[in-house]
Amino acid sequence: MTDVAEVIQRVIPNVIPDENLVRKAKSVEETIKSRLETILGNYPEIEYRFLGSYARNTWLPEGLEIDVFLLFPESYSFEELEKVGIEIGKQIVDSYELRYAAHPYVHGTVDGVEIDVVPCYRLKSPERIKSAVDRTPFHHEWLKDRIKGKENEVRLLKRFLKAGGIYGAEYRVRGFSGYLCELLIVFYGSFENLVRNASRWRRDLVIDVENEEVRVKKGLQNVLVIDPVDRKRNVAANLSVDSLAKFIERCRLFLEEPSEEFFIARESPVSAERLNYELENRFVYVVVFERPPIVEDNLYTQLERAEKRIKKLLEENEFQVMRTGHHAGQNCYLLFETLSGEVSGVKKHYGPKIESYENSMRFIRKNREYSRFFENGRYVTYRTRRLKKVEQVIEHAIRTQHESMGKDVSDYIRYGSVYSGREILKLDDLLHTLADFLGVKE
Amino acid sequence: MTDVAEVIQRVIPNVIPDENLVRKAKSVEETIKSRLETILGNYPEIEYRFLGSYARNTWLPEGLEIDVFLLFPESYSFEELEKVGIEIGKQIVDSYELRYAAHPYVHGTVDGVEIDVVPCYRLKSPERIKSAVDRTPFHHEWLKDRIKGKENEVRLLKRFLKAGGIYGAEYRVRGFSGYLCELLIVFYGSFENLVRNASRWRRDLVIDVENEEVRVKKGLQNVLVIDPVDRKRNVAANLSVDSLAKFIERCRLFLEEPSEEFFIARESPVSAERLNYELENRFVYVVVFERPPIVEDNLYTQLERAEKRIKKLLEENEFQVMRTGHHAGQNCYLLFETLSGEVSGVKKHYGPKIESYENSMRFIRKNREYSRFFENGRYVTYRTRRLKKVEQVIEHAIRTQHESMGKDVSDYIRYGSVYSGREILKLDDLLHTLADFLGVKE
Repeated sequence: MTDVAEVIQRVIPNVIPDENLVRKAKSVEETIKSRLETILGNYPEIEYRFLGSYARNTWLPEGLEIDVFLLFPESYSFEELEKVGIEIGKQIVDSYELRYAAHPYVHGTVDGVEIDVVPCYRLKSPERIKSAVDRTPFHHEWLKDRIKGKENEVRLLKRFLKAGGIYGAEYRVRGFSGYLCELLIVFYGSFENLVRNASRWRRDLVIDVENEEVRVKKGLQNVLVIDPVDRKRNVAANLSVDSLAKFIERCRLFLEEPSEEFFIARESPVSAERLNYELENRFVYVVVFERPPIVEDNLYTQLERAEKRIKKLLEENEFQVMRTGHHAGQNCYLLFETLSGEVSGVKKHYGPKIESYENSMRFIRKNREYSRFFENGRYVTYRTRRLKKVEQVIEHAIRTQHESMGKDVSDYIRYGSVYSGREILKLDDLLHTLADFLGVKE
Repeated sequence: MTDVAEVIQRVIPNVIPDENLVRKAKSVEETIKSRLETILGNYPEIEYRFLGSYARNTWLPEGLEIDVFLLFPESYSFEELEKVGIEIGKQIVDSYELRYAAHPYVHGTVDGVEIDVVPCYRLKSPERIKSAVDRTPFHHEWLKDRIKGKENEVRLLKRFLKAGGIYGAEYRVRGFSGYLCELLIVFYGSFENLVRNASRWRRDLVIDVENEEVRVKKGLQNVLVIDPVDRKRNVAANLSVDSLAKFIERCRLFLEEPSEEFFIARESPVSAERLNYELENRFVYVVVFERPPIVEDNLYTQLERAEKRIKKLLEENEFQVMRTGHHAGQNCYLLFETLSGEVSGVKKHYGPKIESYENSMRFIRKNREYSRFFENGRYVTYRTRRLKKVEQVIEHAIRTQHESMGKDVSDYIRYGSVYSGREILKLDDLLHTLADFLGVKE
């Protein structure tokens, strides 16, 4: 048995950026500063600040990205802030693209290092924020001194989460945001102490970082981390219950058998033979369609919506759905596994109870396909079922119900194809997701 | 629209035995009397009495059967009563067999007319009865004057019920006993009045014949008819909810469109082509096994037990059962229709919630066939399913679980065969039941 502290000591060097990288970042920082000084000469009322993990030195070597915030006075309208912000951003970076969060911002590179230039308002108090990014300067203020000396603990945690596929608050992952990681380290003091505590976490915990207190709140469905900067806000709002569960599990496994493996993301090999066997032995279906050109978070929410809608339609057609999933790669994929692949050509149709004279007579006069019988005093008959196979139900769903499957996805999904059984193996960029979905990942 | 009363008038001649038959019955009655006078010379303490529908003149032409009861003093033990009763019975009839109800009795014929000779105790009050047949003399006493002048109303009702397949309290039918028919006619005064009232019946009615009162008893699951001879007894105890519902339905249909058809039992023709189509389009299975030589009521209760047991096993194997049935002809048959014929080669296996550290670790260490995942914070994995097809589950059930399927049936069912799909058409004496079961009876 290797000791937890010992493993952590061995991992630390791997999570710290090396001298060259730090020097490179510093020089890019200087370049940005000098460009900004020049440009902001024309905008004396706009300030700039380095925020985020770079500013607090909690970034991972593979995750260098410099966040520069432009702080506008409140006299600017949203439109002006956006327009001027993007204009300045473009001038700072070597090459750029526009990205969208609460509002558009500039993403680009300087000397090959990734840069975000984000315009926001300079406010006196976080209670008056106008959009989510306005909160970021306050987060930085709250954290910057408290995190000092614990930067590597944050890095350990981030790497640990990345290896488990639960780092990042984006919808695709629904894991732990960088800010959440830093708060947890401030709260528990160290990575090891966090892991020991989290191995006993429950879903109904409230973590009150500001008041240094953990309490149970009955009926709570998922961990609530109160933002010290805005107590109405849950920092873990985007964390899914399943990501939380995965984290708790990994904490336990790490404590039981500490190893550097917990800090390495491995895409395990997929056995085509095994996939083949599973696909023949089970009822699996995949809807494939072209990926619409929209922001990832929007795409994932809509994929999930489409997935739920199709699941519901399958259930309405009396198919028991064992699991559903989605994946966005080169194309978009919706995955379904059902208990059976085909159902009876008839469905049971329940009529009124015998007590109701009028409804009974109406039922008798209307139903002619099959004769009627009673089940515990209630009329029953059969009706012909048109959609007997899972493929038919899914085809029917995407061709006729696509409008309820998400605004941007709808027009792509309606022209999608349904794959079943071994055909699915043709979908190259789905195989890792598929292995995971079928539970055959090593 | 034909008038209800008019139809009834036209039917009455068909339900009354003709003169020849009545004369024949009278002569048999005389023969029995003279034989009994001779025999009972040796048993001065035993009386005899003609009871039942023959004695009250409520028998149908096709249903002539003369019930003779031998009334023993209470000084006789059960064994003596049985022994002497059977001995006398044998001497009365031309040919005989032993039958069993509460205890054995003699069934035979005299000049080709069916006779039951039933020994019972002669009691002062029905409260002290020792077996169900001891109640019969009291029933006769209660009815004999009250039914006078209404005999043909009883006959109409019996024929109406026979045509609907719901006459008789035996387990196979679970319909209306002859005694129940007579009480209902006494209560409602006429067949027509009964039909008009029954068309509005509900399951939670209490019919108190003695007090000439109908009342609703909340929560009651099936009509309760209080025996005027023993108020603790429900005369309709053997009537099933579905037979009741069928009766109510037939009353309504008869009132809406009166016709003599309601008094004629028709076995409608079965289309082999249609059956063939249904069997190909649905998932239908039949267990066939040799008929055990036991009393019909026992057989039917055990068939139902086996049917329920197999249904439960199918459900435990995740098959949704649409309908089950049974039939005893030359062989015994258990019928099953399921929503699908085959299920996935894996089944979902739920583990502990993430909150439980110890159970989670045990789950992780034990489950190796498939990898684990979370569903709303709870562990899930897959396990290999051995029985994927309905046939396999049923085969497995009758070969290994037959002991829980009814004492006498068990050893026959274990050597039964499972038929599915079109094969079922080979089972000649099942076809009418099958058509009914599939809802394709005209």
